[in-house]
Amino acid sequence: MLVKMRRDATADEVKTVEGKLHDLGFKTGRLEGTELTLVGVYGDISKLPSGEIEELPGVEQLIPISRAYKRASQKSTPDKPIFSTVDIGKVTCGGDALAFISGPCSVESEAQIMEAARLVKEAGGNALRGGVVKYRSSPYSGWEGLGASDTESLKKGLRLIVKAGREFGLPTVVEILDPGDVPVYEDAGVDCIQIGEPNSKNQALLNRLRSTPLPVIHKRGNSLDTEAYLLWVERIMTGGKENVILCERGIASANRYTRNTLDVGSIAAFRYQLSGLPVAVDSSHATGIRDLVHPATLAGIMAGASVVLVEAHPNPLIAKSDGHQGLFAEQLHALVKASRATWQLRRELDQAYLPSATLDIAYKDRMSADRKRFFDK
Amino acid sequence: MLVKMRRDATADEVKTVEGKLHDLGFKTGRLEGTELTLVGVYGDISKLPSGEIEELPGVEQLIPISRAYKRASQKSTPDKPIFSTVDIGKVTCGGDALAFISGPCSVESEAQIMEAARLVKEAGGNALRGGVVKYRSSPYSGWEGLGASDTESLKKGLRLIVKAGREFGLPTVVEILDPGDVPVYEDAGVDCIQIGEPNSKNQALLNRLRSTPLPVIHKRGNSLDTEAYLLWVERIMTGGKENVILCERGIASANRYTRNTLDVGSIAAFRYQLSGLPVAVDSSHATGIRDLVHPATLAGIMAGASVVLVEAHPNPLIAKSDGHQGLFAEQLHALVKASRATWQLRRELDQAYLPSATLDIAYKDRMSADRKRFFDK
Amino acid sequence: MLVKMRRDATADEVKTVEGKLHDLGFKTGRLEGTELTLVGVYGDISKLPSGEIEELPGVEQLIPISRAYKRASQKSTPDKPIFSTVDIGKVTCGGDALAFISGPCSVESEAQIMEAARLVKEAGGNALRGGVVKYRSSPYSGWEGLGASDTESLKKGLRLIVKAGREFGLPTVVEILDPGDVPVYEDAGVDCIQIGEPNSKNQALLNRLRSTPLPVIHKRGNSLDTEAYLLWVERIMTGGKENVILCERGIASANRYTRNTLDVGSIAAFRYQLSGLPVAVDSSHATGIRDLVHPATLAGIMAGASVVLVEAHPNPLIAKSDGHQGLFAEQLHALVKASRATWQLRRELDQAYLPSATLDIAYKDRMSADRKRFFDK
Amino acid sequence: MLVKMRRDATADEVKTVEGKLHDLGFKTGRLEGTELTLVGVYGDISKLPSGEIEELPGVEQLIPISRAYKRASQKSTPDKPIFSTVDIGKVTCGGDALAFISGPCSVESEAQIMEAARLVKEAGGNALRGGVVKYRSSPYSGWEGLGASDTESLKKGLRLIVKAGREFGLPTVVEILDPGDVPVYEDAGVDCIQIGEPNSKNQALLNRLRSTPLPVIHKRGNSLDTEAYLLWVERIMTGGKENVILCERGIASANRYTRNTLDVGSIAAFRYQLSGLPVAVDSSHATGIRDLVHPATLAGIMAGASVVLVEAHPNPLIAKSDGHQGLFAEQLHALVKASRATWQLRRELDQAYLPSATLDIAYKDRMSADRKRFFDK
Repeated sequence: MLVKMRRDATADEVKTVEGKLHDLGFKTGRLEGTELTLVGVYGDISKLPSGEIEELPGVEQLIPISRAYKRASQKSTPDKPIFSTVDIGKVTCGGDALAFISGPCSVESEAQIMEAARLVKEAGGNALRGGVVKYRSSPYSGWEGLGASDTESLKKGLRLIVKAGREFGLPTVVEILDPGDVPVYEDAGVDCIQIGEPNSKNQALLNRLRSTPLPVIHKRGNSLDTEAYLLWVERIMTGGKENVILCERGIASANRYTRNTLDVGSIAAFRYQLSGLPVAVDSSHATGIRDLVHPATLAGIMAGASVVLVEAHPNPLIAKSDGHQGLFAEQLHALVKASRATWQLRRELDQAYLPSATLDIAYKDRMSADRKRFFDK
Repeated sequence: MLVKMRRDATADEVKTVEGKLHDLGFKTGRLEGTELTLVGVYGDISKLPSGEIEELPGVEQLIPISRAYKRASQKSTPDKPIFSTVDIGKVTCGGDALAFISGPCSVESEAQIMEAARLVKEAGGNALRGGVVKYRSSPYSGWEGLGASDTESLKKGLRLIVKAGREFGLPTVVEILDPGDVPVYEDAGVDCIQIGEPNSKNQALLNRLRSTPLPVIHKRGNSLDTEAYLLWVERIMTGGKENVILCERGIASANRYTRNTLDVGSIAAFRYQLSGLPVAVDSSHATGIRDLVHPATLAGIMAGASVVLVEAHPNPLIAKSDGHQGLFAEQLHALVKASRATWQLRRELDQAYLPSATLDIAYKDRMSADRKRFFDK
Repeated sequence: MLVKMRRDATADEVKTVEGKLHDLGFKTGRLEGTELTLVGVYGDISKLPSGEIEELPGVEQLIPISRAYKRASQKSTPDKPIFSTVDIGKVTCGGDALAFISGPCSVESEAQIMEAARLVKEAGGNALRGGVVKYRSSPYSGWEGLGASDTESLKKGLRLIVKAGREFGLPTVVEILDPGDVPVYEDAGVDCIQIGEPNSKNQALLNRLRSTPLPVIHKRGNSLDTEAYLLWVERIMTGGKENVILCERGIASANRYTRNTLDVGSIAAFRYQLSGLPVAVDSSHATGIRDLVHPATLAGIMAGASVVLVEAHPNPLIAKSDGHQGLFAEQLHALVKASRATWQLRRELDQAYLPSATLDIAYKDRMSADRKRFFDK
Repeated sequence: MLVKMRRDATADEVKTVEGKLHDLGFKTGRLEGTELTLVGVYGDISKLPSGEIEELPGVEQLIPISRAYKRASQKSTPDKPIFSTVDIGKVTCGGDALAFISGPCSVESEAQIMEAARLVKEAGGNALRGGVVKYRSSPYSGWEGLGASDTESLKKGLRLIVKAGREFGLPTVVEILDPGDVPVYEDAGVDCIQIGEPNSKNQALLNRLRSTPLPVIHKRGNSLDTEAYLLWVERIMTGGKENVILCERGIASANRYTRNTLDVGSIAAFRYQLSGLPVAVDSSHATGIRDLVHPATLAGIMAGASVVLVEAHPNPLIAKSDGHQGLFAEQLHALVKASRATWQLRRELDQAYLPSATLDIAYKDRMSADRKRFFDK
């Protein structure tokens, strides 16, 4: 970090700043220009108390230099990127094979989730998703999920999807809304907990998930910057938890045609520049239009996603929620095949061209995103 | 609601749609054009099962006609707008006087919150705010509030602010993060519960607050449209709860200079077009810059806010959180006086010019926001 | 279009509206509900004078039903989509082969553009781009292009790129800034005119381009909705001009990491739902980060783009503008090969799975974007 | 500016960077930390060739320190802010009195503009606005202004508004679309040229306006950051032109209710932190809803605007463009009176409380916007 002094700061003011920093246990350096002086601060600036320095006389501004997230970022030395794998049951995310997770928006009945599981299995999917308590943007939407009324109903709903998953050999992914429900999910045998977009910044929930052994898929909030999102992901990981999967599901923009805007640039940045965690693409919520899920998913894979998370339903026409974006059976079959072909091509292209595409890690680092901020000025 | 049939829909397809609607208990009407047919649906369309109609052969699209939120909207007949008042302790929000709520971002110690309460009282404020558990966008920020560690610490922190408020005759407003904590807040004697921006769409928390007798200030999420936000507010009110206060605290936009963008157009829309609930303006989070809080707050009052919610601190230079946006004592004194003068002027102007400004309620309704959507095409 | 009457509108008011519409040459229909009346309007509503109807007593709102753009939209019957091809010199865009356009941000000298043309040719590109007058977000950036000073300098700069293109058999694409310069571009032998993002809504320029025989690449403005952009494209085409190419180059969003946010959902919507025009993907401006151009381009192709437009430079390290996003030679070679492989796969997948992916054209139409708006309510 | 070296940069690489900077005529300083080295660059960095330094071996990033706009920023020493005034005809903007500019969206006929001028005069306005060539987001809107067909029609249209203005003693403000038309506007006797939002980044037009003696109102583009906008304004002023007026007319955001989002935080920042130029508030385009123009305008004045620019029409019900946002006569009369009362109050409050509100200029500078960027990390 740098402390930028005001143009009219006195020598004494600079010394006071340095003295204060030394008292706080930091080392400093000084850069005296013709117009102003900068004081460099060395050490773990996350331990610098807010306001201690920036309010001292003669100080104009603090300028951060390094990235703020540590655990969510690439587990690597600059020349040896290491990517994490996260297991959902027996399915490995971020490894050699594409992990394809699908299922209905919500679990509606035993028959429906059984049929959905059969559909996912037959289409070639790897894991089963399905909500037992559901977000609804309107309180008048009616259906809020089988498990919405109380803990017993939640348990019963979870049992249904776990049963369906086990019947067809599919690990299960279920969204959670209330931090108090974590033990219920763990006890029910769910294989992965999902944090939905509306809860992306739900601090109480994220803190609570630090201690679950279950893997977590954390969806990006629709107004979170790429790196700000990683800081919220980092929150779950601060206690040492490692099995977290990123998920891009569309962000807010000037575009009003699709439900959200799928940010493939951030997918690419997660995969190739910022993080070693597996990245999922959720094109169902990103587009909100059933027939755009197919091309948007393939785009997400090509950008760097190694996990696909899409909604499908035995009969979307009678789905109790989000039926407009749920895939029909034929569509799911087609998408799994097309996704695997796309994944295969991307792996070949990564092998053939990635060194050229990014030149080399050292160079990539130098040309990193921080760089472009200068050019935008 | 209207059902728009495809251009090539057959007469039988139209009849099937109408029959299905009748089966579901709706009445219908028909509008046959040269190019296509529209079927009107009469009744409570919130009871229409998703997918039932829109997937029938020949159907192209459903077109909604009426507003989706009921309780958060104006409690009025077209020509007699009625505005709610909400009491926080003995302070009335939305009434004849401006309600001015201030205090530190977080309660740091008994001495600090006592001094803060004294400051708010002496400056002429009406209620005391202060967080006991705090949001932090980075898990490495360190300070997450006096009450962050466990329920006991939460109780202790709440006791401090309640004590300070009572000492100076100021009702207290405290943010909540976890639905499980509601009884703790109620028991501690807090006068109002605040929902922060990151929790604006936290369904579990909003559902839980339906049953608290305490008034709730619900901050707008930074990517929520004006009306979408009202739907989340509506969620708290669906069980009959009425004492809710809206709060505009800035939304995301292309602007990167201020922390968020204060949306005075929505404040005006809440006040003059959409809702009878009191509206608070939080310029601290909207601007994120201490010296812009003053003009932005006055702008918010002029746009229609009847409650001010700003951060102030006995010494912002040593605040443990958000010190950059907390007002100094002199600033708070100045802002309370300027805010009351602005409120006084707005009331005079409303009396003198509002009928001309909006012509009349009937006209206003006709020129409502729905209208402009047509012109945007 | 529908005229929605107020709930309290009288029968006379409805009749007055219908009478006025008849006077204006429209046919009408009527849909009387239990709560309100709708009047359907048949005919070319673009001829309806603004304000004539919506201000009549008893009228609440006009509700549009059909799309506002005609020529930029798919040249097709519902079951027979027809896609346009646009020729840039001898290179066909939107046809069987991917069109790969590349070159430096700006033409800097004869030697530089010659070397750039050689690079594009050797890498396997199809056409050469290069700016002769350049946008700069700061007036202090210095370099505004070889042609910035006057018409003579513009002519000279254009001659250089045309010469380079012809030397290597590459048609040329050059951006224009001033409507007065169109004849200069035509006379110089440029093969395609490009409209940059800052000019996306430059009405004088778009109007002027109606009459040029040259093909036009029209970049989407960074705050334009998918369909609003098509309306600006439509402006060029209203006189009958057909050789226009869409270009997605990133839009504004909450994301601050990449320069803009590449909207692959809109690329997919252009290709599969809204338009028959060829779509170009410009990942250089979308990401602003050299090393993300590769994955983002491949994502764009997979989403539906048939034209690639990226910046490359013989030596980006000494580029006079946008050097941070210009590809190195090795990167361009890799990207052309990877792009062609991706294009090949997408064509195979389109053949194999598109009918399933979108079920059928009739269904696609029914599940169109208009639909999801209902569900978002 | 600072050059941030890579952690593994060698001493030789640092020396090479310094040597190169010296060759380019810059002075340097050095700050050696335990982890990395920073090289400070002193001098006019706008003269630093792009790419020269950032691509040298061992360089990681360039970090800008100072503001990039000079002329558009406050003409002041830190303790003596000086505000510009700009004269439109005999009306002073940015001075002691509020300048109120109004008129129809477009000049439709001699009778209409005469009646509009009478309305503005009688309501107490100071200047007359009216478009002779009009932006339309759809090419099918029909009406593009009296002057849309050719130069003769443009001249004729301009003559009408100038005549009307002179008849009622109101200087005139007219939007321009084509750089080639500047002399036509000058010769016609127009008193001020307006740049509309779609042309906010029209480089050819902005460059051309450098040399007009007429004052210019430059509207902010709806996706331009506060400071990025000032850089486009700066473009007009680089040749020495000083009579430029800023205009906030709403920006894009998540809000879909109003046409745009009026950014009062940026108005406050222009007025109190960034610029000495007069600031206009255009609430007509910011809200797009006639009945919200009144409260939004008052909010804009309270935030710091000294010029009001709103649309009014003798009869908005028959306006050929933007009739939905044009004020009725009664509304304009009410708004002028309310605006002047609000202006009066703001001046009193500025006198009474501004020193407290902003503490002091030195402090304000220290707490400037750059600061908050640190806290956002």
